[in-house]
Amino acid sequence: MRIESDTMGKIEVPSDAYWGAQTQRSLRYFAIGDDTMPREMIRAIAILKKATAIVNKNLGKLDTKKAELIVQAADEVITGKLDEHFPLKIWQTGSGTQTNMNANEVIANRAIELAGGVLGSKDPIHPNDHVNMSQSSNDTFPTAMHIAAVEEIYHNLLPNITKLRDSLATKMKEFQEVFKIGRTHLMDAVPLTLGQEFSGYISQLDKDIERIQLSLPDLYELAIGGTAVGTGLNTHPEFAEKVAQEIAKITDLPFVSADNKFAALAAHDAVVMCSGTLKTLACSLMKIANDIRWLGSGPRCGIGELILPANEPGSSIMPGKVNPTQCEAMTMVCVQVMGYDAAISVAGSQGNFELNVFKPLLIFNLLNSIRLLSDACSSFTEHLVLGLTINQEQIADYLNNSLMLVTALNPHIGYDKAAKVAKKAYEENTTLEAACVALGFLSSEDFKNIVRPEKMI
Amino acid sequence: MRIESDTMGKIEVPSDAYWGAQTQRSLRYFAIGDDTMPREMIRAIAILKKATAIVNKNLGKLDTKKAELIVQAADEVITGKLDEHFPLKIWQTGSGTQTNMNANEVIANRAIELAGGVLGSKDPIHPNDHVNMSQSSNDTFPTAMHIAAVEEIYHNLLPNITKLRDSLATKMKEFQEVFKIGRTHLMDAVPLTLGQEFSGYISQLDKDIERIQLSLPDLYELAIGGTAVGTGLNTHPEFAEKVAQEIAKITDLPFVSADNKFAALAAHDAVVMCSGTLKTLACSLMKIANDIRWLGSGPRCGIGELILPANEPGSSIMPGKVNPTQCEAMTMVCVQVMGYDAAISVAGSQGNFELNVFKPLLIFNLLNSIRLLSDACSSFTEHLVLGLTINQEQIADYLNNSLMLVTALNPHIGYDKAAKVAKKAYEENTTLEAACVALGFLSSEDFKNIVRPEKMI
Amino acid sequence: MRIESDTMGKIEVPSDAYWGAQTQRSLRYFAIGDDTMPREMIRAIAILKKATAIVNKNLGKLDTKKAELIVQAADEVITGKLDEHFPLKIWQTGSGTQTNMNANEVIANRAIELAGGVLGSKDPIHPNDHVNMSQSSNDTFPTAMHIAAVEEIYHNLLPNITKLRDSLATKMKEFQEVFKIGRTHLMDAVPLTLGQEFSGYISQLDKDIERIQLSLPDLYELAIGGTAVGTGLNTHPEFAEKVAQEIAKITDLPFVSADNKFAALAAHDAVVMCSGTLKTLACSLMKIANDIRWLGSGPRCGIGELILPANEPGSSIMPGKVNPTQCEAMTMVCVQVMGYDAAISVAGSQGNFELNVFKPLLIFNLLNSIRLLSDACSSFTEHLVLGLTINQEQIADYLNNSLMLVTALNPHIGYDKAAKVAKKAYEENTTLEAACVALGFLSSEDFKNIVRPEKMI
Amino acid sequence: MRIESDTMGKIEVPSDAYWGAQTQRSLRYFAIGDDTMPREMIRAIAILKKATAIVNKNLGKLDTKKAELIVQAADEVITGKLDEHFPLKIWQTGSGTQTNMNANEVIANRAIELAGGVLGSKDPIHPNDHVNMSQSSNDTFPTAMHIAAVEEIYHNLLPNITKLRDSLATKMKEFQEVFKIGRTHLMDAVPLTLGQEFSGYISQLDKDIERIQLSLPDLYELAIGGTAVGTGLNTHPEFAEKVAQEIAKITDLPFVSADNKFAALAAHDAVVMCSGTLKTLACSLMKIANDIRWLGSGPRCGIGELILPANEPGSSIMPGKVNPTQCEAMTMVCVQVMGYDAAISVAGSQGNFELNVFKPLLIFNLLNSIRLLSDACSSFTEHLVLGLTINQEQIADYLNNSLMLVTALNPHIGYDKAAKVAKKAYEENTTLEAACVALGFLSSEDFKNIVRPEKMI
Repeated sequence: MRIESDTMGKIEVPSDAYWGAQTQRSLRYFAIGDDTMPREMIRAIAILKKATAIVNKNLGKLDTKKAELIVQAADEVITGKLDEHFPLKIWQTGSGTQTNMNANEVIANRAIELAGGVLGSKDPIHPNDHVNMSQSSNDTFPTAMHIAAVEEIYHNLLPNITKLRDSLATKMKEFQEVFKIGRTHLMDAVPLTLGQEFSGYISQLDKDIERIQLSLPDLYELAIGGTAVGTGLNTHPEFAEKVAQEIAKITDLPFVSADNKFAALAAHDAVVMCSGTLKTLACSLMKIANDIRWLGSGPRCGIGELILPANEPGSSIMPGKVNPTQCEAMTMVCVQVMGYDAAISVAGSQGNFELNVFKPLLIFNLLNSIRLLSDACSSFTEHLVLGLTINQEQIADYLNNSLMLVTALNPHIGYDKAAKVAKKAYEENTTLEAACVALGFLSSEDFKNIVRPEKMI
Repeated sequence: MRIESDTMGKIEVPSDAYWGAQTQRSLRYFAIGDDTMPREMIRAIAILKKATAIVNKNLGKLDTKKAELIVQAADEVITGKLDEHFPLKIWQTGSGTQTNMNANEVIANRAIELAGGVLGSKDPIHPNDHVNMSQSSNDTFPTAMHIAAVEEIYHNLLPNITKLRDSLATKMKEFQEVFKIGRTHLMDAVPLTLGQEFSGYISQLDKDIERIQLSLPDLYELAIGGTAVGTGLNTHPEFAEKVAQEIAKITDLPFVSADNKFAALAAHDAVVMCSGTLKTLACSLMKIANDIRWLGSGPRCGIGELILPANEPGSSIMPGKVNPTQCEAMTMVCVQVMGYDAAISVAGSQGNFELNVFKPLLIFNLLNSIRLLSDACSSFTEHLVLGLTINQEQIADYLNNSLMLVTALNPHIGYDKAAKVAKKAYEENTTLEAACVALGFLSSEDFKNIVRPEKMI
Repeated sequence: MRIESDTMGKIEVPSDAYWGAQTQRSLRYFAIGDDTMPREMIRAIAILKKATAIVNKNLGKLDTKKAELIVQAADEVITGKLDEHFPLKIWQTGSGTQTNMNANEVIANRAIELAGGVLGSKDPIHPNDHVNMSQSSNDTFPTAMHIAAVEEIYHNLLPNITKLRDSLATKMKEFQEVFKIGRTHLMDAVPLTLGQEFSGYISQLDKDIERIQLSLPDLYELAIGGTAVGTGLNTHPEFAEKVAQEIAKITDLPFVSADNKFAALAAHDAVVMCSGTLKTLACSLMKIANDIRWLGSGPRCGIGELILPANEPGSSIMPGKVNPTQCEAMTMVCVQVMGYDAAISVAGSQGNFELNVFKPLLIFNLLNSIRLLSDACSSFTEHLVLGLTINQEQIADYLNNSLMLVTALNPHIGYDKAAKVAKKAYEENTTLEAACVALGFLSSEDFKNIVRPEKMI
Repeated sequence: MRIESDTMGKIEVPSDAYWGAQTQRSLRYFAIGDDTMPREMIRAIAILKKATAIVNKNLGKLDTKKAELIVQAADEVITGKLDEHFPLKIWQTGSGTQTNMNANEVIANRAIELAGGVLGSKDPIHPNDHVNMSQSSNDTFPTAMHIAAVEEIYHNLLPNITKLRDSLATKMKEFQEVFKIGRTHLMDAVPLTLGQEFSGYISQLDKDIERIQLSLPDLYELAIGGTAVGTGLNTHPEFAEKVAQEIAKITDLPFVSADNKFAALAAHDAVVMCSGTLKTLACSLMKIANDIRWLGSGPRCGIGELILPANEPGSSIMPGKVNPTQCEAMTMVCVQVMGYDAAISVAGSQGNFELNVFKPLLIFNLLNSIRLLSDACSSFTEHLVLGLTINQEQIADYLNNSLMLVTALNPHIGYDKAAKVAKKAYEENTTLEAACVALGFLSSEDFKNIVRPEKMI
């Protein structure tokens, strides 16, 4: 153990830890749950620390040597090399101050080490005065939230939704000529093709991608430069803009300085909105996954139009059983995203004055939603959609037996007579044609000319 | 128009309205939405006003004549005769003060009228000094919330759940010997009887009834006697107990005075808890309604084991279509109850110091949930469950074709061999028996002796 | 009573009702709750019926006389003249079929009446064959959902948010030079101006307006032309486009035909997304309303920086009490919108195959959210924001006493020493200046030059 | 690597892993997110495996040697010694089959090892035939869910709520004579004591403890014995009862066999209900934590009646700032619990036929809620409540200045006159006494006799 100190006094920290006094206090006072600050956030904070060091140097506020040390240490955090030095929980102070200080301390101590100094000495790098220069937790943490969310959406989520969308498009083409019965209210309806059915899924996902993209501009806006309450106290007038530019350069993403720093600290509507688009995606995916498992239900006592790939044994007691487990994982993910969205909404509404203090919860849940949806889309594509096949015989049987083909008669004999045909066929368990002819509404020939599924789509 | 006045000054009110100045101000300042205070709450407040008048009289604080006038006017409100004089919105002050004053004003003016006085004169009955004697909105409104909720649960919801439960029990007996295939993960599984399937629904509802009953004792506790902040300022020491007793007498329900009045005004955990039990019921009903509509899906291209009563034409374009509309109304109700529960939870968490000011929202949503669930249970019973029949042929076909009967072989040939049998039968589209014999695992006779659905339940 | 009939047979309806058999059946089978289909939806369906009649006429499918009759009757529904003939509940069939038929029946019977025919005769206008020509509930109801939502957002919600935004902007200017203490974590922080604080609210609302506008293009897409399952069975190839154009013309809003009709019937992601933007607005408004009531808390035992207009007496027991009731109505509305959003999300995820059958719930909740937010924004503006004033003395007292002005010392004496100053001042209940001088960190003069609130923003 | 096999064929697993083929397949097919099955569930499944081995032995179905090997291996899992062999994700099959198989495989292989056999040989212990004997994932997984939830509630959550409740009771006594102003609608109201204010919190928690206890009987009911669909296929008639007894013995908790196994597999109302009680607790805690941080707001520009312990530096930029971080962690936990409850509700409503396939999500979220609430209660007690002190001067100042003491005049001069007094004092910024005397309503003496805060509680 070695001694570190902060404004509260001295405290022992493990000698091999880069973190300092404030991180150690947080470990003592916040032993709540198992959830630690996600890797994506640690990376994002370090990106910010690197950017601020560069800008502070360029603005003449930080000497070059110090700036270089900070950048070098921050780079190690960015790559994940120092992940074990970020042990703090989500359930800490609501501003994320302790995680900001964790980053300040780790970067300072690692920089000190690189400079040949003594850990904990704050010399030549002070966690507050140098690593946190011109910053407050109140602007750094929300800045990192946006960086982390955008990076994950951009590099992970959007590509994986697109991958799923494209796999469905492949299947749509494959199924373009598969005529099948439609179902509304779960009941037999008029026909369509399986390709058309899949086109609806693709349309949903295309729009979900757009919706998520529409939520990005809000997230590109960074709080940095607002410091403690949004006024930018203790910062250089060019600081905010230049840091945003530097972050854009490091990440290759179009981050900008937020127009209004007061809102950027005190509210997180951008996160609420983004979560709303993720929840909308979850609703789409739930519909798609449910459809596919119902269409694949059976094999002998369900709908059985689709055949899902058999990846693993489905039952520990029923031999030979194969279950739609990818659909189950997907629908669980969708429901979880709804839960995260509910928490994000409440948290987003609870800002007071110059700060919203539900920040760690907000980014924890948002990143969870992004990660789960990304992975689930990828898994669903690879382990389900690409291996989908059809049971052509079953599909054809349903189509030929359905009473709802009667709808094609409406323009010819009117709704009321057509209804009589359907009822008679149902009650007497016969065909529509037989019923229609028996009722004297049409000749067999006319019926056959009118009621042709392939002409009904 | 006539002139009424309050501490803010004079204001015009319609000459035929019993309400007074404060109600009129609320109409002016809260033109938000269309939702008015529910009838059940108006009745409950009037029950309370009657009880307090009687108790104030008995405690010697209110002269007999005045008390009688208040009781008489309150009785008219209780029966619903004066409903049109309660025009206020839910979206008003969060304490419900304006509705409490609406009741005070209407009862005062009607009592004045009964006494031959002049509307608006506050003579001989003053809305605050007499009708609201020993009370504050802060204790009257939550008291009325509990009265209204309990009356509705007791007289409406519980009987209707029981009615549904009993109708399912009738069907359970009817279906006791209907052997059918089970389904897990939507996939064919081992058999059970339809009666067993229904027994699960009954078990769910039995427990839901218990859960709702467990939430009642909390609601029996009344805030009355706490007045403005819970201390009971300006009340007689026996007031709280005696009013609770009087309310119990009027309603014939076991209301008592709340142990802790501070919590009774500042928090509404009892409402949150009760809503949680309603939401649990909603989850049960969603499962039941979904099962029934899926089992009734078809008639020719779905599962088709159940036949639901055909109450109305199902489609404006597809003649002869009949849809599981009772299931749809029920599942919509269930989802709505989840939404109301979400709002109740947030509102319940937002109390500050001596008062929670989300009271109108809390009781509006709770009563909505109670009413919707009550009516939906009743409708579902009468228009669906009682008319349910089965498609015996379809049920038998599924049972005989299912590959999962193979599970009965486990204790005889082991899980791995049984799996081979199922796989072979599936891939070669043959029977389990044929596959088992072909694999040399069992003779045809032995197979037939082991695999008997009626022995598998 | 007179006799009407549908495919189920004959049924009695009140002789003065324009509705017919199917509406009557719905009244019988769906006595669930008190919520009826909102006026905005009735209007929207009638707009659609008018548009389809015109297009069917232009496409040569409907003779001119019939079309004119339908248009004339539909116009009466649009204006609200026939509202009493739309008695159906939300909690009906999940496709809204019964409300579509209600409209078909009312328009048909009113048209028959205009033509001098016999109510219920379906001659010369048949509710299915003529009023519902080329349509299905499955495409008409979601079309009307979008029309109703867009009209309300466009004509009601957006103007009212703007009105609130503008009133806050007026106050922002008024408060531009009001220097005050900032608060983070509810604790004293560094200063800002009240105008800056309000600028955060304006920034939130500006972005909320943008978010809601971003959700409109999805809603401009109309399902009409998809008929029963999305294939457009029984429609003219130009029908979908032309009806969308006609609706755009009638409403003067840029409606278009949906690209993919399968998704338009089977999913309601556009509604889920729109609700997500309304929920985001609700989160913003909750923050704003909370801030204002906390800043106005007191008058003597709270924060007391703002003085809210005194619209009504606040208490039935505490004379002279004035409460932030507009804030309470607003926050209740915000929480309710979160509840509606929760229900909308679940409902939106529950489509199956070619149809989502939670349509009435979806539009009921969406319109409720729109209406409540519109009215609450308007009420909040008129009855609160415009009348806001400040307690300058209180604001100045806080500012001058705050220990957090110490932050200005950071760049001069470093974070650690500045912390010592603040601590000493706090513990000894003295001023920062006294503490700083006593600690020997700065002269009194230097201190005064550095710590100047007006320079800290 | 070594070769393991299941009904799908052979697959390589790491040679030092105890898990087998099905676990390995799950790793391959479910790379979704970072959430692994919680330790509490692994322990619970192993408790069940131990109990079933003992019962199978006692019923003569499993030979003693095999049973002993299974018990020994299960004991190692129970203690946590083999935790690293349970790598599976939450986002897997919705029945938890893969985790059940993970346990079967690990216990089998470890038992084989103990017997000197070859890993993967299934000899002498077969994962399905022996470890999973008489069981299905469909009954084992929900059984383990209940065991895990009850153990955590009983041993962790209830003690920690009680600890918090008791710490508040200590403070209540300490604060019994601290007279202070009450606040309703955030506005000054009539007085109470700080002890009374705290008594409300204690009352809330006392009832929350009761509510959670009321949810336990449902959870004591175990699904085991239902096997695949609830019929108990392939089990001994005494199996269910005896296993429940054995589990009760191992855990020393009153577990019993569920009355209805169909509901126990297909629905999870017990989990939904339990989550509802946890959410109610969350609402209580949110109110308590919010009150305490607002009462402690300041130190100079807030309410400032309470002084919270200063555990860590509060700001990385504002020196000397101390924040109510324990309140922030607590309120974040409360909001998260609401989010988990939302997901649990949706998942709980989505059962189909004989199985609900959202099991891993349900128990993941329930255990998360339990753990977070337990830890947060403990942390809040130790690091906040026990160190709470008061600012007596501030409390007294507020009390003496409040205008709401006027309420004590109601019974003497009536509500309307009392209101005039309050208004005059407010507008002229004077005392109530001065205003009352100036208005000629009471003499100074009489006023002093009536308006005494200590008599107003």
